[in-house]
Amino acid sequence: MTVKLLKTLMDKLKIVTMGGGTGSFTVLQGLKKYPVDLKAIVAMTDDGGSSGELRDEMGVLPPGDLRQCLVALSESPEVLREIFNYRFSKGKMKGHNLGNLLISSLEEMKGGLDKALPYINNLLALKGEVIPVTFNKVKLAAELDNKILIGEHNIATSNLIDNCKLKRLYTDPRAKANHKAVKAIKEADAIIIGPGNLYCSILPVFLILGIKQALKKTKAKVFYNVNLVNNNKHTKDFNVFDFVNVIEDYLGKDLIDYVLFNNKKPSKKVIEKYGKEGDMTEFPKTNFLRKDNKILIGKNLISSGLYEQKKGDPLQRTLIRHDSDKLAKAIIKIVQ
Amino acid sequence: MTVKLLKTLMDKLKIVTMGGGTGSFTVLQGLKKYPVDLKAIVAMTDDGGSSGELRDEMGVLPPGDLRQCLVALSESPEVLREIFNYRFSKGKMKGHNLGNLLISSLEEMKGGLDKALPYINNLLALKGEVIPVTFNKVKLAAELDNKILIGEHNIATSNLIDNCKLKRLYTDPRAKANHKAVKAIKEADAIIIGPGNLYCSILPVFLILGIKQALKKTKAKVFYNVNLVNNNKHTKDFNVFDFVNVIEDYLGKDLIDYVLFNNKKPSKKVIEKYGKEGDMTEFPKTNFLRKDNKILIGKNLISSGLYEQKKGDPLQRTLIRHDSDKLAKAIIKIVQ
Repeated sequence: MTVKLLKTLMDKLKIVTMGGGTGSFTVLQGLKKYPVDLKAIVAMTDDGGSSGELRDEMGVLPPGDLRQCLVALSESPEVLREIFNYRFSKGKMKGHNLGNLLISSLEEMKGGLDKALPYINNLLALKGEVIPVTFNKVKLAAELDNKILIGEHNIATSNLIDNCKLKRLYTDPRAKANHKAVKAIKEADAIIIGPGNLYCSILPVFLILGIKQALKKTKAKVFYNVNLVNNNKHTKDFNVFDFVNVIEDYLGKDLIDYVLFNNKKPSKKVIEKYGKEGDMTEFPKTNFLRKDNKILIGKNLISSGLYEQKKGDPLQRTLIRHDSDKLAKAIIKIVQ
Repeated sequence: MTVKLLKTLMDKLKIVTMGGGTGSFTVLQGLKKYPVDLKAIVAMTDDGGSSGELRDEMGVLPPGDLRQCLVALSESPEVLREIFNYRFSKGKMKGHNLGNLLISSLEEMKGGLDKALPYINNLLALKGEVIPVTFNKVKLAAELDNKILIGEHNIATSNLIDNCKLKRLYTDPRAKANHKAVKAIKEADAIIIGPGNLYCSILPVFLILGIKQALKKTKAKVFYNVNLVNNNKHTKDFNVFDFVNVIEDYLGKDLIDYVLFNNKKPSKKVIEKYGKEGDMTEFPKTNFLRKDNKILIGKNLISSGLYEQKKGDPLQRTLIRHDSDKLAKAIIKIVQ
């Protein structure tokens, strides 16, 4: 096949990612390098750190997850991406992210995030589109055996989900999907779920009314990228199948077509540095298996980079990460 | 003269403005419409409001005066100028200006304001250049009969200058001129001083070591735009000549070639609205006079617009303003 023909074919490929945080950033960074039509559907329940303060103080929608996807898809000069990523490390702005302030200010200036986003897309010369899963202001909530946790940040930092039985994860109030998200899902050729915080970035997208229904109607190939590392608070000792099971509890058994998991252990250097952060997700010994109408594929998907917790960042981030390029290559190989 | 020839001639005209705040913004907005080479030399002693907090908390140079000149000269899409002008009206960012935060963050990111400015100029698609008069961190100080006032904001909000004898205005420590400012002054065809707060925006530029010397060497025509309104705290009952005298106390008698003053009273509507803010500067009855090698020209230079104190702005601004176009037209007519 000629490069030109490949390009023409791929131009038509519509890829939609779902999630939030560093996970979405990573997968978008990789996919951006291919000539595909990219749309990122983003969780809107963040209420910790900079996003949380802006929600409380300005009454805006949480900008943090959007920002990471915007930066990933930006083809603007480097300096604009640096601006969007800049975090104040002193003074009363400490912990705030300049990109978050920009998004929230534009939301206020333009009278709504829906009205502000076209300006932001334009400013950042976006390759693709970033789509908030909802424009409703909602909190994530977790009903446990003996307690209800309100707020994504509270859930993210609590070990109760692991210790108690999670009876129900929901949004308060119930939220309606952004029609653009529904349309993108229905028209997609491929949908990429994760990687990302299971209870706080991935599932919150499925809780929005209309998303699961759209997923059931789409003809897209649906991928799930299993997390590399377990979160000791939520997914202690999870293996690849445990992750898939939780996702399927929310989406049903027939939706996911491909499960991509990492089967390469991190380097000694990485383990030494982040050893305490969490245990690697246990993976099957075989790197290709079929199970319940799904194909599970194991590959080396891990980044050899050493990440640092960023100065001034009030939230703890995962520092063992997927390699954008490896992940995108594995997806594209199946999709095209 | 054909338009093309006029354009060619004017392309060579190098115009330099000196001052800060709304005054510089106004004159630059007007001059920007002509095909001239524009450079704005900006006072760097602001320490009130948003600029003051950023100086104290981030240890940066004051961004406020720069920002106003940057916005005036920007030819970027409207939304970027809106971003640079946006002021937070609630939350812990209240009173801060998003443009100030952007300038200060870039100063920190790039390791200095001198290194950050080319990025900002590029981002804002500047027509011309904004030049901080100094990169030294200094405070404005006023030695009075019986007291020393430290800090521009303290001086701006004190009525002591009017009531006591001002013995000396100086910067603490002494500051060296940015070499770009010196070069711009020496190479200029016209230098436009003011309008602007006399003791807090205009004179602070002349106090920087090297500026007065450069002004003495320039072959440029030097203009002084007299303020429309008196500041009851500093220039109560000043007339046009009083303003010129103060400027000449600092620059000497031979430097200013043209004095432009407004000779049109504001409309009843404007007086009704801002009557209490200050008295109009008294002007000579004749609209053309020569005095001590200077030409004084009176014109209708006043804006008919009704300005509002902006929501969330912690500083009091002059609301009776020059008309950018009238002011620029009067200058260009003499310069060309």
